Amino acid sequence: MAKHNNYKRKIYLQNTPREQAKKELLDKYEPDRLTEYVKSADSLGRVTAEPIFARFSMPHFHAAAMDGIAVKAEATFSAHESNPVQLNRSEDFVFVDTGNPVPSPYNAVIMIENVEEIDEETVEIIEPAAPWQHIRPIGEDIVQEEMLFPQGHAVRPADIGALLASGAIEIPVIKKPLVTIIPTGNELVQPELAPVPEKLIEFNGTVFANFIREWGGEPLIEKIVKDDPSLIRTALLTAVASSDIVVINAGSSAGSRDYTVHIIGELGTVYTHGVATRPGKPVILGEINGTIVVGVPGYPVSAYLALEWFVRPLICKHLHIHEPERPKLLVTLGRRIVSTMGAEDFIRMNIGYVNGKYIANPLTRAAGVTMSFVRADGILVVPPNQLGYEQGESVEVELFKPVSEIAGAIVFNGSHDLTIDLLSAAVKKHNPHMKIVSSHVGSMAGLIAIKKGEAHIAGTHLLDPETKQYNLPYIKRFLPGHELVLYPFLKRKQGWLLPPGNPLSIQTINDIIEKKADYVNRQNGAGTRVLFDLLLNDAGFSPEQVNGYDREMFSHLSVAAEVKNNLNAAGLGIYPAAKAMGLDFVPLSDESYDLLMTREFFESEQGRWLISIIKSKEFEEQVNRIGGYSLQVDAKPIII
Amino acid sequence: MAKHNNYKRKIYLQNTPREQAKKELLDKYEPDRLTEYVKSADSLGRVTAEPIFARFSMPHFHAAAMDGIAVKAEATFSAHESNPVQLNRSEDFVFVDTGNPVPSPYNAVIMIENVEEIDEETVEIIEPAAPWQHIRPIGEDIVQEEMLFPQGHAVRPADIGALLASGAIEIPVIKKPLVTIIPTGNELVQPELAPVPEKLIEFNGTVFANFIREWGGEPLIEKIVKDDPSLIRTALLTAVASSDIVVINAGSSAGSRDYTVHIIGELGTVYTHGVATRPGKPVILGEINGTIVVGVPGYPVSAYLALEWFVRPLICKHLHIHEPERPKLLVTLGRRIVSTMGAEDFIRMNIGYVNGKYIANPLTRAAGVTMSFVRADGILVVPPNQLGYEQGESVEVELFKPVSEIAGAIVFNGSHDLTIDLLSAAVKKHNPHMKIVSSHVGSMAGLIAIKKGEAHIAGTHLLDPETKQYNLPYIKRFLPGHELVLYPFLKRKQGWLLPPGNPLSIQTINDIIEKKADYVNRQNGAGTRVLFDLLLNDAGFSPEQVNGYDREMFSHLSVAAEVKNNLNAAGLGIYPAAKAMGLDFVPLSDESYDLLMTREFFESEQGRWLISIIKSKEFEEQVNRIGGYSLQVDAKPIII
Repeated sequence: MAKHNNYKRKIYLQNTPREQAKKELLDKYEPDRLTEYVKSADSLGRVTAEPIFARFSMPHFHAAAMDGIAVKAEATFSAHESNPVQLNRSEDFVFVDTGNPVPSPYNAVIMIENVEEIDEETVEIIEPAAPWQHIRPIGEDIVQEEMLFPQGHAVRPADIGALLASGAIEIPVIKKPLVTIIPTGNELVQPELAPVPEKLIEFNGTVFANFIREWGGEPLIEKIVKDDPSLIRTALLTAVASSDIVVINAGSSAGSRDYTVHIIGELGTVYTHGVATRPGKPVILGEINGTIVVGVPGYPVSAYLALEWFVRPLICKHLHIHEPERPKLLVTLGRRIVSTMGAEDFIRMNIGYVNGKYIANPLTRAAGVTMSFVRADGILVVPPNQLGYEQGESVEVELFKPVSEIAGAIVFNGSHDLTIDLLSAAVKKHNPHMKIVSSHVGSMAGLIAIKKGEAHIAGTHLLDPETKQYNLPYIKRFLPGHELVLYPFLKRKQGWLLPPGNPLSIQTINDIIEKKADYVNRQNGAGTRVLFDLLLNDAGFSPEQVNGYDREMFSHLSVAAEVKNNLNAAGLGIYPAAKAMGLDFVPLSDESYDLLMTREFFESEQGRWLISIIKSKEFEEQVNRIGGYSLQVDAKPIII
Repeated sequence: MAKHNNYKRKIYLQNTPREQAKKELLDKYEPDRLTEYVKSADSLGRVTAEPIFARFSMPHFHAAAMDGIAVKAEATFSAHESNPVQLNRSEDFVFVDTGNPVPSPYNAVIMIENVEEIDEETVEIIEPAAPWQHIRPIGEDIVQEEMLFPQGHAVRPADIGALLASGAIEIPVIKKPLVTIIPTGNELVQPELAPVPEKLIEFNGTVFANFIREWGGEPLIEKIVKDDPSLIRTALLTAVASSDIVVINAGSSAGSRDYTVHIIGELGTVYTHGVATRPGKPVILGEINGTIVVGVPGYPVSAYLALEWFVRPLICKHLHIHEPERPKLLVTLGRRIVSTMGAEDFIRMNIGYVNGKYIANPLTRAAGVTMSFVRADGILVVPPNQLGYEQGESVEVELFKPVSEIAGAIVFNGSHDLTIDLLSAAVKKHNPHMKIVSSHVGSMAGLIAIKKGEAHIAGTHLLDPETKQYNLPYIKRFLPGHELVLYPFLKRKQGWLLPPGNPLSIQTINDIIEKKADYVNRQNGAGTRVLFDLLLNDAGFSPEQVNGYDREMFSHLSVAAEVKNNLNAAGLGIYPAAKAMGLDFVPLSDESYDLLMTREFFESEQGRWLISIIKSKEFEEQVNRIGGYSLQVDAKPIII
């Protein structure tokens, strides 16, 4: 639009291969490394600026390695049980304790346990001592002038021992590079002020700061700058004057308010605008007055990745250290992965260890969904020349978590219920080595996951229209021949979720149609969707008559959140979701929410242990505290 | 001896399996977990004390995902290139920027680039908008009341974004367990005071503190306590009153001054004294007044391992987190490993990646040699029921360093020279991804390492008695048929290393024998040893005539350190070692110290790059600065 048109014509966005862009950037970066001295005791994780040499040896004298007497070995050679040798104090021996110097001319230590005291001045021995026995010679560990560490060595705990032992009380380390972070955007407010209506919370800056800290840099977050070219210009010029690296967040794309690239171009040089990756494409790499400036996209996941690709290597180059690599794991794909030719795809993955196989499934690709990054077990990098992978293919995934943590997780799939979060917390509380990893994909998808061997447990509440029975008819139909256990978990109240005060006075499905409510629907295959379709059908309506039928939400809470913000809305969901969001609730039915598991898991140590948690008084009390639930404490598991 | 006899009879030392001792200890530990609140922005690495739920959704309104206009999708369905649709401001659309709320009843956003401005109040579009396009719906990322993290979650950078975005400005975290460290020993002084004659530097406490910090605990180092039962008793009682865990260092063995176990037994309970491992055996696990006390052995390597086996799990249990595991690597053993039946052996290993194989060799097993821990690439755990492994066997090693770092290292073996340290520093400086890992095993062992494919380069200075030629005769004799390159590296001065002032007036081998000097010898196979044996033989002496012939040192610096501390001593070594230690030096010969490498390495990128560093002016200047060297700058490599 006119108001921003002055920049509009200059918009461009390249498709530079990421590795090439990185190499060019690193080649341009000439770090201005400063040295500072820190106490060795406080140097953990710091990086040596120079080689460190030992100032003195360790031990710096011949030291006794035992409590006992120091002797001349030659004087003991004839000692034998049948020929005890007596030694005179000061003349033939001196007493030494562990760590004491062994004075010249003594050259062996005999353990006190093997010494018989005859009188104040005389001892007797019955075994000869070998020369240098029980003595730690000078420099046994560290020899004076020896190089302990080259420059570019990141200090670990044990290294500090070697430093102190050899006289390095202080060491020269590379001063951490100062990375200034400039958040920009009219829509942003500081987290402390949130939630402000119509404003989004600025959190990227704080996340960046923590990444930078973790990588060894010194972050500095500037105040949020408005989307105004002159303000951005000033902020950039100020930052480059005092920083080793500058990160500017958002405005890196090619939209009409994305000034950053033009400003960097005006004030300095743009090396790259746009790399051939998704997400993270609209990154800007450039410099102003000799300082590298990295413009990262606004969407959090794009931003985190771009930071890792470009800012971390700069910090590592500055610190002279290896760029860390994530451990990798070969996994089997649970779903087909589609990728675009010519661009890398970074796909966040969930990984579950089920039936002796690591099964990985993609999480959402939306770059704005931070929780997909938080929940990911790893990331799959699809190379630019690859169109994707088929289901069942083996691919290598970079891990965010240790394999042992992934291998120990109970994979929960299927319908979402708030008690699963509680169960997950209870599991972790009782055994930090165990946890539940859950994907809320709906009841039907949960059944399929069990069928495909991708989950240990599925939460399900599928009402059969004919028998009006929950779950069992579906399991028999879709998973014939599988060895399964259906564990009756709880009954919960389903009903209409309505804005506070129920402004449209909704009681029945008829009200929803007749009052043209904005209905907030669930995804296909969700138990709640099955229930709604059944209600609709029973009342003789068709989906076309429902406002909003085609838009799908993936959890009770998502439905409740939508309903909360629209006075005209209505949804179907469970009572606890209504309660959590302060909504009105019109109950419709008590439904069975059960846990389907493989027989093998049910009978495994993990499975039995999980059941014991479910059956615990503590868990029952927690569930009752939410309200709207009744745990099926006396129900028997159904072996299928 | 009498002075300590009161405790003597109570001495005992068990052989408890390590895992059993650990399990018993963990079962006894009932952490007193306290919760504290920290700013989410500063919570990196802290562990959640409770599950964290979202206070509000993210976004907390329907937010525009593009700059443009918000419209009712239904009003755009008829738009087409041939049928532009005009929309009126306020009535049919409003302008929105990315991140702005999309007000009701609008349900789609059209990018500003696709909007034609007709006048102040009217725009025209030629494409229909799909409902909800370019809108981030409420809770797309995080839904209010959703559980973000269970308790026991260690916060990572991206997690902080999710916390801030959903309103968690502060979070409850588990207060770090306070681990008090009590160093004991009459022989110890604080590092700041060192070197004190006859005293050893106390550094274990500082190393422990850094390990504990790294593992998530809060360390507190007490002052050094003398070996006096009443002082130790007081220190322990004070510490247990205020700490979550107490670590007492040394006095854990079964020697006469090792009171600790008796004192813990008197004041509380000893669970275990002695585990079936080497090193680390004499550990004490017990409690006083309900607080766990861990007595770790005095030798640093034993101490570090014992701390990792017993204190880390306690901290992890306190914090409710997974005990981290080291990555593992399958390696081929370069040497036979002998182990004792009935005890685990923890053997520090060097690993080199040579000829496409990871070759691992054991470092010294001496528990007092911290540098063996510092230099180790990993650790081999030999189970109690295993007598050892044969050379060439494949074994799994726990890694101290990333595989990529091990794989990128140039493996240097053979004779020690100070310039190799310089070269190592130069390599690291010019490329942080490359480094030299060196084992100083002597010239002959270096040749054998090349022969066995365990090293890329060997430093060698072997003088052939017959031809008086360096190196080449040995290589031809011991490595026939190998494709090798002998790179003439430098000439260096060998001579007598003598105490300052040369008190025995030594000039020749005859002086050493006749004046009964304490000769400090090198190990068999070292070039300097070969030279000494040659001198001895040429002068008509036998080894038996040399005082100290049988005791072997492994480097020039070790010899020099020995000579420095004994007025009666003499050694053979290179000029720079004499200079570094301030010794007298009587030159004997200029010897050739050459680099033997495999042809493959010499021609590799790594090899060519290494040679370019050797040939650099910068390196030459550094070498010249030491003195006593002349780099063979113009010499040609000899292809064998």
